[in-house]
Formats: sequence, structure tokens, C-alpha cells
Amino acid sequence: MSEEEAEAMLLELKEKAELMVDLAYSSTLYDNKEIAKEVYELEDYIDKLHYELQKLAVEDSKKGELEVDETLAIIRLGNCSEIIADAAREIADVELRDIELHPVIKESILESDEVILKAEVKENSVLNGKKLGDIELATKTGMWVVAIKRGKKWIYGANKNTMIKKGDILFVKGPREGMKHFMALVEGKESEI
Amino acid sequence: MSEEEAEAMLLELKEKAELMVDLAYSSTLYDNKEIAKEVYELEDYIDKLHYELQKLAVEDSKKGELEVDETLAIIRLGNCSEIIADAAREIADVELRDIELHPVIKESILESDEVILKAEVKENSVLNGKKLGDIELATKTGMWVVAIKRGKKWIYGANKNTMIKKGDILFVKGPREGMKHFMALVEGKESEI
Repeated sequence: MSEEEAEAMLLELKEKAELMVDLAYSSTLYDNKEIAKEVYELEDYIDKLHYELQKLAVEDSKKGELEVDETLAIIRLGNCSEIIADAAREIADVELRDIELHPVIKESILESDEVILKAEVKENSVLNGKKLGDIELATKTGMWVVAIKRGKKWIYGANKNTMIKKGDILFVKGPREGMKHFMALVEGKESEI
Repeated sequence: MSEEEAEAMLLELKEKAELMVDLAYSSTLYDNKEIAKEVYELEDYIDKLHYELQKLAVEDSKKGELEVDETLAIIRLGNCSEIIADAAREIADVELRDIELHPVIKESILESDEVILKAEVKENSVLNGKKLGDIELATKTGMWVVAIKRGKKWIYGANKNTMIKKGDILFVKGPREGMKHFMALVEGKESEI
């Protein structure tokens, strides 16, 4: 049923756009061009998804499955995600143009109530070999995985089935108070999650 | 020192813009015009802050406190927050124009890995009478407070010093897996945070 398809697209647009903002800030804070390039690629993907969503919403309206107002609400919400994605791309651009942020700016972003951390998973970490859904990382520590670097590979938009492995470099976002507990977990200094 | 002032402004812009997106989605999901109006007011505030930031960045540059590239980076990051704030306002507009979202769209947003909940704090809840910083709500449950309705008053952008009281209506954002624990805490069914 295409109506459900439109909603799944809308949700994906929303989630991807928000991920892009987190990735974009991560790229500038940790001076990482690979993450910045991913933001660019996601932007292309979002452009296509956005077009498909608009098309589907109007088609559904024509078929009588959506009211005019509902169709416009879908289009408007889709536009907002597209705008947020564009903003994320602008942020990533700061990194790709090799503009070095002033150290005090980086600190100020890192001093926010919500921090973005980068940390390597040690072999004796409780996270090693566990799926994100099993350890409930976000629920137990407040930290969301934004990106994972595994060897040369990158994993963006991890979900509950994503397995964490030793040597993974995690980029996470979460509350300042959760930093200590999270770092102790990835470094294997604390085993209780 | 004006340089630090610019960074504090940049951080405030970033945080307020992200809060606005959460508030905007909350307003459409829970059909709440008061939250939507707050998004509008924050947008006006952000416009002013954004202008002040740009002015300060250029002034700092003139004084030799910032390099040209650094000045441009500040202006660009500030622009991005302004763009995100504009997108949030568009989302809030869906609510203010009385466009009712299709129920399946609401469900699809609520079915995201990240949920927005609305819940009333019961008298016997462990949250009652505690400061957010003391209970470390975000760290322990993954849930961030987006807005609080206390009687006729609203509290937006709560911080660690914000006291939670019985009868407060909390709008929170966090991981789907954390929903149950959070609801049990506010309803006083569970006392261990």
C-alpha cells in the first residue's frame, strides 16, 4: 500500500536528516573528511528520496487515499527534512574546505550539555561482540551511535542489530553527565552497563 | 572578551535550533498549539542572536582576534542553525494552520527508534521534587526533556537545575527501548532510576 510507503519515506527522511547534522558536527569537531563526505552522499540520497516522497504524496491524494491537507502536510514535513539536510551539508563543507575551527569554538561545542565523543572499543570492553539492541547503549548511557569506523569501513546509522567489535572507533552523541560512564565502558574499565 | 562571547552565542544558536526541531515535532504529534507558538517565538529570538553573532564575528576579525577563515566558519555555522530554526518553524506551522496529520504519519514518527513522549509526573514518582542534574535523567534513561508544562506555565530548554514536580507534564525525546523504564518512573511504578 503506497500510503504506508509515503510514511516510511517521511520517517527515513527525518531520521537521515538528523543523522546528517550529527555527522556534520562530528566531522568538523574531529577534523574528519570521510564523515564530511558521507554527509555529501547522504544529501544526494535525500534529494532523491524527497522527490519520490512528493510524487507519492500527490499520487495518493489523486487516488483519494490522502486529503489535500494531509498531502500538503507530508510535503511540508519532507521539505523541512530536506532543508535540515542542506544545513548539515553546509556544516560538512566547513570541514571539506579545510577551514580549521578556532580551538575555542570546538571547546564550546564540546562543552554543550550534549557532547559528541570519539572513542575506541577495547578488547575487554563489555561492548565488544555485543549488538547495540542487546546492550541498550542509548537507554543505559544516554549515548547514541552516530558513526562507527571499523578498519577502513564506515557504518552510518547503526541500529539494534549492529554488532560492536573491538577496535571499532565510535562517534557517539549524548548527555555530558554520561561521558564518564560511557568512556569507562568502551575502555573496559567498567563492566556494568 | 568578545571572542568567547561569539562562541557562547554560536553554542546557544546550535542548541536552541535543535530544541526547536524537537518542539516542532512535539507540537504536531501531540496537537499542541502552545508548543508551536513557542517555536515561533524562539525563531524571532534566534534571528536577533544570529545577527549579533555575525556582527561580533566580523568585529573580532577586524580587531585581529579571528582569522578570516575562522570568521567565515562562525558565520557559516551560525547560518546553519538559522536554517534549521526556519525548518522547525515550518513544521510548527503545520500545527498552527490546523492541518491534522494523518494518523498513520503520527504513528510512523512515533515508531521511530527515537520517540517523543508526553507523560505526567505522579506524586509518588522518584522524579517528584528532584533536580534534573541530580537524577541524571538523560544518562540513566536516555530521555531528554524537551518541554515541561507546569500548570499554565511552560518551561523550555530545561537544564540540570530544573526541578521536576508532581503534576508536571513532560515532553521528552529518547530511544524507543527507554520508553518503558521512563514511563514506570514518572508513574511511580518503579523507584530505581
